[in-house]
Amino acid sequence: MSNTQHESATPPTKDGPFFLGIDLGGTNVKAGVIADCGTPLSKCTTRTNAAEGPVAGVRRMCEVGRDAISEAGLALSDITAVGVATPGTMDIPRGMLLAPPNLPGWENIPIREQIAEHFEKPTTLQNDANAAAYGEYWAGAAREANSLAFWTLGTGVGGGIIIGDTIVEGENSHGSECGHLILEMEGGRLCEGTEQWGTLEAYASATALVKRCREAVGTGRDTSIRQRLEAGEELTPILIGAEAKSGDQLADELIMETARYLGVGTTTVIHIINPAMVLIGGAMTFGRHDTELGRRFLERVREEVRRRAFKVPAEATIIDYATLGGDAGFIGAAGCARLEITRSGR
Amino acid sequence: MSNTQHESATPPTKDGPFFLGIDLGGTNVKAGVIADCGTPLSKCTTRTNAAEGPVAGVRRMCEVGRDAISEAGLALSDITAVGVATPGTMDIPRGMLLAPPNLPGWENIPIREQIAEHFEKPTTLQNDANAAAYGEYWAGAAREANSLAFWTLGTGVGGGIIIGDTIVEGENSHGSECGHLILEMEGGRLCEGTEQWGTLEAYASATALVKRCREAVGTGRDTSIRQRLEAGEELTPILIGAEAKSGDQLADELIMETARYLGVGTTTVIHIINPAMVLIGGAMTFGRHDTELGRRFLERVREEVRRRAFKVPAEATIIDYATLGGDAGFIGAAGCARLEITRSGR
Repeated sequence: MSNTQHESATPPTKDGPFFLGIDLGGTNVKAGVIADCGTPLSKCTTRTNAAEGPVAGVRRMCEVGRDAISEAGLALSDITAVGVATPGTMDIPRGMLLAPPNLPGWENIPIREQIAEHFEKPTTLQNDANAAAYGEYWAGAAREANSLAFWTLGTGVGGGIIIGDTIVEGENSHGSECGHLILEMEGGRLCEGTEQWGTLEAYASATALVKRCREAVGTGRDTSIRQRLEAGEELTPILIGAEAKSGDQLADELIMETARYLGVGTTTVIHIINPAMVLIGGAMTFGRHDTELGRRFLERVREEVRRRAFKVPAEATIIDYATLGGDAGFIGAAGCARLEITRSGR
Repeated sequence: MSNTQHESATPPTKDGPFFLGIDLGGTNVKAGVIADCGTPLSKCTTRTNAAEGPVAGVRRMCEVGRDAISEAGLALSDITAVGVATPGTMDIPRGMLLAPPNLPGWENIPIREQIAEHFEKPTTLQNDANAAAYGEYWAGAAREANSLAFWTLGTGVGGGIIIGDTIVEGENSHGSECGHLILEMEGGRLCEGTEQWGTLEAYASATALVKRCREAVGTGRDTSIRQRLEAGEELTPILIGAEAKSGDQLADELIMETARYLGVGTTTVIHIINPAMVLIGGAMTFGRHDTELGRRFLERVREEVRRRAFKVPAEATIIDYATLGGDAGFIGAAGCARLEITRSGR
């Protein structure tokens, strides 16, 4: 099978086509111009200042987008299309932000139309985790794969699924929400963000890791984490990771448990999708391949999948870390714009 | 969004196109000719006689296919393409049966090529549960939907997922295996068929229902099932269903628990796919809408989804019974052949 979006080959030239990607987050807006082959030509960042509201926010998105065009040495007339990624909740077909928890007050915003009117370009809207998945698929670690399941491990657990040219955005823009798959049907931990029980996010998110750590420290177990808490430090995955690297057994256990939970969730996703590749991205990856802890984390995920999935997909599915980091969102947003242009034949 | 396969409208005429579907099961082979609009024009069934081996078996598939063409009042020259559905394991892109547990000895059979050579027609191969899902999607209860998750409740729990024109067959022909999603990560029931722990199939299949029932009877609970077992009857979902309809509380509880398990699994599928529709098919559906028990079973699935899924998809996802029954497989197989022809522009 071949995927047209993987076929890009020509090096970027002034002839384009070029795509502008804008990734709106709760804290920052990132934008960049991406060449047809997936290479970023520029990257600009500004604060979202979400509390100033959506009118000012969309203006800032447009400004940072224009900065990215300038930084790439291009003019607006060189840009073929614009892709926007935002957190949900949203209505992707209608191009609307509905009520994103990360952007309080940004309700029922026709953001696709607003961006399209500013740039006077065809514009697409996509969920941020789906866009990041598409970024890795088009131009990152999955660029040779025909299908992808993507995890973002952070405060919550996000997901993105790509099958061929299909981004699994769902009938109600609620697709690929793999972080909420159920690991424990009876009882199970509470995810405080969603008020759901027994979901992957309730076990494997940064929030959950911190909570499990606090509980374990509370049982009186011997751990170097206790001293750091008593010194007034905030309990974070970074702190837990640092203690694990320094040899603290509890910290190490908690992190390897997180990997095991992610492995169980990955098994369910493999049963349902059987993707060519599973990538782990987001802020909480413990140094990825650069540290022994990160390498063991990944190996623990793989081990759990081998233990639980069917033999053929267990052996065939490539499970690895994502490579685009925080740039995956705007790169993928630009990729979604490109995909739409390819589809519509414009 | 529109789907070309849903746009079919013209009534069947001698002008076609017509598609032959053949559904190979462990016990029977079913075949039928389907008009371009999804209407079956014929249906023929023969025994698989799997033990006679694949050479005899494929010959029988071809014979029953030819019978179906005759019964439709057509000639082979009227048929545009042939679709074959089989149980896995298989390699769909290569058109191979690998080692289907239901067809012992049928190993490494290039079945697509063999059928194509016999009929001298373009031929497609699809997994039987995926084909049944596509049958419901093209011509059954989901014909108005843009995406579908399909359950087959029987000895095991099968799954099929369709998103737009994409049948989620997976990178290694192991996609849509939703029956194996994990409900209970720690411990959980053993699925004897797959030797996996805590999977949906270990809770909600006919096999699991019978096992749970036997355990409950073994605890000494008061139930009319005991008398029937003592009279030498075989414990089956039909027997349990009959006792539930006669007012036996244990039988009713066991069946409603099955619905709850299916509701939990459906919630995970909704989180991952967010399909427009979820359909329940297969042999174990307790009379569907025709009985009070069947209606309560469905309502219990829906209730569990409402309790666990996000509000928007929980309210929007249509959950209902499939309508094509045992014909879904050969209808869907024909539909897959039609889809491939449409795609390739032949």
